[in-house]
Amino acid sequence: MKPFMNADFLFPDACSRRLFHDFAAGMPIIDYHCHLPPADIAGDSRFRDLAHAWLGGDHYKWRAMRANGVPEEDITGHPADYRTFMAWASTVPKLAGNPLYHWAHMELQRYFGIDAPLSEKTAPMIWEACNALLAKPEFSARSLLKKMNVKAVGTTDDPADTLEHHVAYAKARQPGDPVMAPSFRPDKALAVEDPAAWKAYLDRLGAAAGVSIGSYGELVAALQKRHDAFHELGCRASDHALLAPVAAFVSEQALEGLFAKVLAGAVLAPDEVEAFKTGLLLEIGRMNARRGWAMQLHLAALRNLNTAMFLKLGPDTGYDASADRPIAEKLALFLDALQADGLLPKTILYSLNPNDLEAICTIMGCFQDGSTPGKLQSGSAWWFNDHIEGMRRQMVALANIGLLSRFVGMLTDSRSFLSFPRHEYFRRILCALVGGWMEAGEIPPDFDTFGGMVRDICYNNAKNYFAIPGVEE
Amino acid sequence: MKPFMNADFLFPDACSRRLFHDFAAGMPIIDYHCHLPPADIAGDSRFRDLAHAWLGGDHYKWRAMRANGVPEEDITGHPADYRTFMAWASTVPKLAGNPLYHWAHMELQRYFGIDAPLSEKTAPMIWEACNALLAKPEFSARSLLKKMNVKAVGTTDDPADTLEHHVAYAKARQPGDPVMAPSFRPDKALAVEDPAAWKAYLDRLGAAAGVSIGSYGELVAALQKRHDAFHELGCRASDHALLAPVAAFVSEQALEGLFAKVLAGAVLAPDEVEAFKTGLLLEIGRMNARRGWAMQLHLAALRNLNTAMFLKLGPDTGYDASADRPIAEKLALFLDALQADGLLPKTILYSLNPNDLEAICTIMGCFQDGSTPGKLQSGSAWWFNDHIEGMRRQMVALANIGLLSRFVGMLTDSRSFLSFPRHEYFRRILCALVGGWMEAGEIPPDFDTFGGMVRDICYNNAKNYFAIPGVEE
Amino acid sequence: MKPFMNADFLFPDACSRRLFHDFAAGMPIIDYHCHLPPADIAGDSRFRDLAHAWLGGDHYKWRAMRANGVPEEDITGHPADYRTFMAWASTVPKLAGNPLYHWAHMELQRYFGIDAPLSEKTAPMIWEACNALLAKPEFSARSLLKKMNVKAVGTTDDPADTLEHHVAYAKARQPGDPVMAPSFRPDKALAVEDPAAWKAYLDRLGAAAGVSIGSYGELVAALQKRHDAFHELGCRASDHALLAPVAAFVSEQALEGLFAKVLAGAVLAPDEVEAFKTGLLLEIGRMNARRGWAMQLHLAALRNLNTAMFLKLGPDTGYDASADRPIAEKLALFLDALQADGLLPKTILYSLNPNDLEAICTIMGCFQDGSTPGKLQSGSAWWFNDHIEGMRRQMVALANIGLLSRFVGMLTDSRSFLSFPRHEYFRRILCALVGGWMEAGEIPPDFDTFGGMVRDICYNNAKNYFAIPGVEE
Repeated sequence: MKPFMNADFLFPDACSRRLFHDFAAGMPIIDYHCHLPPADIAGDSRFRDLAHAWLGGDHYKWRAMRANGVPEEDITGHPADYRTFMAWASTVPKLAGNPLYHWAHMELQRYFGIDAPLSEKTAPMIWEACNALLAKPEFSARSLLKKMNVKAVGTTDDPADTLEHHVAYAKARQPGDPVMAPSFRPDKALAVEDPAAWKAYLDRLGAAAGVSIGSYGELVAALQKRHDAFHELGCRASDHALLAPVAAFVSEQALEGLFAKVLAGAVLAPDEVEAFKTGLLLEIGRMNARRGWAMQLHLAALRNLNTAMFLKLGPDTGYDASADRPIAEKLALFLDALQADGLLPKTILYSLNPNDLEAICTIMGCFQDGSTPGKLQSGSAWWFNDHIEGMRRQMVALANIGLLSRFVGMLTDSRSFLSFPRHEYFRRILCALVGGWMEAGEIPPDFDTFGGMVRDICYNNAKNYFAIPGVEE
Repeated sequence: MKPFMNADFLFPDACSRRLFHDFAAGMPIIDYHCHLPPADIAGDSRFRDLAHAWLGGDHYKWRAMRANGVPEEDITGHPADYRTFMAWASTVPKLAGNPLYHWAHMELQRYFGIDAPLSEKTAPMIWEACNALLAKPEFSARSLLKKMNVKAVGTTDDPADTLEHHVAYAKARQPGDPVMAPSFRPDKALAVEDPAAWKAYLDRLGAAAGVSIGSYGELVAALQKRHDAFHELGCRASDHALLAPVAAFVSEQALEGLFAKVLAGAVLAPDEVEAFKTGLLLEIGRMNARRGWAMQLHLAALRNLNTAMFLKLGPDTGYDASADRPIAEKLALFLDALQADGLLPKTILYSLNPNDLEAICTIMGCFQDGSTPGKLQSGSAWWFNDHIEGMRRQMVALANIGLLSRFVGMLTDSRSFLSFPRHEYFRRILCALVGGWMEAGEIPPDFDTFGGMVRDICYNNAKNYFAIPGVEE
Repeated sequence: MKPFMNADFLFPDACSRRLFHDFAAGMPIIDYHCHLPPADIAGDSRFRDLAHAWLGGDHYKWRAMRANGVPEEDITGHPADYRTFMAWASTVPKLAGNPLYHWAHMELQRYFGIDAPLSEKTAPMIWEACNALLAKPEFSARSLLKKMNVKAVGTTDDPADTLEHHVAYAKARQPGDPVMAPSFRPDKALAVEDPAAWKAYLDRLGAAAGVSIGSYGELVAALQKRHDAFHELGCRASDHALLAPVAAFVSEQALEGLFAKVLAGAVLAPDEVEAFKTGLLLEIGRMNARRGWAMQLHLAALRNLNTAMFLKLGPDTGYDASADRPIAEKLALFLDALQADGLLPKTILYSLNPNDLEAICTIMGCFQDGSTPGKLQSGSAWWFNDHIEGMRRQMVALANIGLLSRFVGMLTDSRSFLSFPRHEYFRRILCALVGGWMEAGEIPPDFDTFGGMVRDICYNNAKNYFAIPGVEE
């Protein structure tokens, strides 16, 4: 029996161990897509206690507690405190097999040096020990990133954002501090389903861009202006949440018509909504291509499924799920429309439904064009798929259908400064996979080549693919 | 090389073995969903011979024989006899890799003490030996259940059933005899696609409820009366076969209109059928919630696909398959409609298509509310998925996305008194999974915690979740 | 650590090794579905150099090179030459985890006796060594087949083809030469989406059949004539590419109407297209049933997704992907329509989307009728699924839901004379699977039975199932 989560956690053999310890472990991190609040990085925030740092906004943990029978009152009924922490501590032993079980213990180990499994019994001791550490300056937001060897983070930002924290941080950043690059997430500009909210958003977007938006053309122009401004601040990626791919192609004139219709408060028919989204997303794709940015499509998330709880807690509180609509044909049509104009950007495709992996990987292969190694990417296993099987399944699908060696690798997608051991988790799974091939004689015992491949997937591929300014060579 | 199907069958390591032998093996069984005939339990039926007990109504075996080239004449052409048994015996060695191969041998081992693999060569010996045992009183229907330590079975019953065998058995049951609880399966009340059959069914339902059913409101009232009566007899679960989730919401008045239309013999349009089913299923969901019952949704079974054979043999003869329609959005809407009224019952979601697991497990998580641990459940791998990979896949998906520790575990879904070793099969797979985590250092070597978790999944969770009256504490 | 791809490649245990070396390795090959050019077999073609033999038309390799950042100019910009080969050699080390990595090395090992992993460094040596061998007569097309113990190949042929190379080869074939049987692939007769191309095709078909085709009935008659002619030349299988199953049933009269409409140049509505395809495919199914042929349905391939590259390079150049439409219900209806007439032929179902496996295997089971063991087949993992996981997944699904022992096994589906080690790859995966069961005690250590099963899947099942004339007993 192997010891619980020790240095060789997840490694069944010597090749995996060597690949990890000699090649992966020392590589820095580029967390190219996350939801860390820019203000916390710019302001180098501190944490009140372990409940605040660990449980405050983490709806993954909230879901686990609800499924374990913890009353909502103890989860979101008040700001996270010792009582919340104890509810969480009593849930953790029930989480065997869930990635939260490993994440929680890796986080306690790596940040706080605590090896004891968390349970109701160990909880008081762990609470005290962690809080004592969190009170120290080396547990500030930025220090936590540096502790994990993070060279860059890509936050998620609305085009209407002023990016003031990015501006401030860019000026104040010291050598050794991680780069913070914004990502361009214009979901609200596409959200014509709710005319009133959309119209209010256009006002904010116009204000940020310094223009007034009275037509489709002006909307595109405003987004382009923000795209330019984001680029200046180091942004090299856009990001888009799409329930399903869109591929309803209409003329620019028709798009103007749809714009006017929504602006007048009309609710569009579903095919009109799709046409509007298709048109605007193509425009953003073209902006990305011209600038050399990557376009990230996050597919198949159904959101806010529990109406009662949505009304009480709002979005991003643990009421989302995987969709299961077919995606292949429209995804291919959308990419082809950009390709036909010679303006298909680097593109990363994520789906919340793991059954989409094969369609995604085979479609990707139809648009690789030799311009950038791995130009089209299958995104790392995302959200509900971010666990051993899910990550392994994504990498195996990519390896079988495409080129694993060109994979840009892991991202946290997280709101928490404590979730960076997920990169280590990913790297362990990667090394177990590649090491397993070597151990079995499926690849030669050539550590130069395959250790190099591991290093590329850990760091170099992302560095070259995104080319975020200021990330060390 | 390990011996064939010995005491350590399916265990690659010491942790698995210990979890099974020290924790799982001794736990009793609650078979909360099966198709055993209540009359056979109440009457403590006996079996003519091994063909009768083993092959008479088992369409799993029939399918295997057909695929092996056995003519239909030797399968269903006459009541199961020695010739049928020999056709089966010659098929078994061809079944390597199929769960029937393991089931058949576990059944021979556990009930009859026969360790020899079944083949044409061993068949005559096995036929004699088993028949000799079946002639003994300790091989009656009820004795077979007790031999397997079954504490309760949940049969599958139509609301129009009189439940006479349940009534009789409840009165006559001796200490040590298993509890027999009915389940409430009102599929026929929803089957408005065939107005004539449906109307005839309403007559039977009305008779059982002691009311006449001339309106939608009266139909609901009749079902409520039967729901009450089922509750009195220990029923704690409803059960529903749905090709796909339904989510077409209309007013009570519209439902009355649809009722009248079908009653008048009209064939409803597909969207009307869906609206009717949605409305009535919501009503039953509310009845369940008020009574604390569990609601079981069995999704994605396509039935009677071979018309020629259906006309010859009728339903449940081996001509069913997995559907592959998207299910996520409507399933979420259906559950949300119950949740919005605060009347979402405990719910167990099964799909015959294993690709639905991720959608199901993520949707479940949106409706856990802290009221009952594991209130929403992913049902155990069902029918065509009831094999090592399928059970493992279901448990791994549940573990990754939800809480395996709260799982209510296995059920046979069987028509046969000889299929209870499937619980042992499930437990072995569970212990191999959890033991494997322990062996690999993914969880600590804490047998109190994880042996307890195994015991919960084997028995305690189902006991607490269903709370069938009379099941020992 | 095991040596790289040695004689025991892919075998983790002694049972696998024994099953392969003692049972599988010596079996001949029936490659019942491939795309080898009949002219090359009849004419016993020779290869200019390794680039010509290996890279000339292989769009699997082209895709890999594009994803690796190789410019199109070096891939398809000129006839394959040393520069193409070097681009390929530099890509191979990047392919770890992809089946091309194993295929490439097995091909170098088996045909050319080269054990060194291919890379830029080893490429010049390998180029020289292979070219020297390719210059010898024992590296002609036919010699390569004989070297791999190929007893028969099933080419893919249009009903409008004259089959002149088949005729010539049948006359000239020497004892020991492989049988070459045509397959009947009438895709173009069903392709009514493009009336002009379809009409031109009818002219060619009519010419081949010696009739003029002015009606639906005459089209069926012409196809029947070609079906007869194909049968004479040893054809025992039809083959059909279908994006999704078709099941829109209309009368013969309606089919005549649709025929007339397309002939007049009209573009049919989607439901009309489906009705036409359904009708004609049923006719061909009936022809197959009457003749005892097998019908192969290849589902879920999306083709030519990259319009710009399609215009430049044409079809079959690496721009295809997996579809993800639901298939179950229509597939079942289509098979049932043939079954209802008692004219369901032996049928092999392939899908490019591995998520379809469970639907396919469960539907198959509904139409097994005892007439032929394994009458309905799940086709071997195809194209993007033709790798270790994909093949294992297909075999495990088949084993769990149907009878692996009745599987007709592997086919290359290839355009290359160098791809026959894929049969060995398949056999190794099969032996690892079955051997693993034996090692684990899931089946008894009965090599007679399970070694025999392996031999059946390697060769005997295909020999009996297709019964291609001239294949040795």
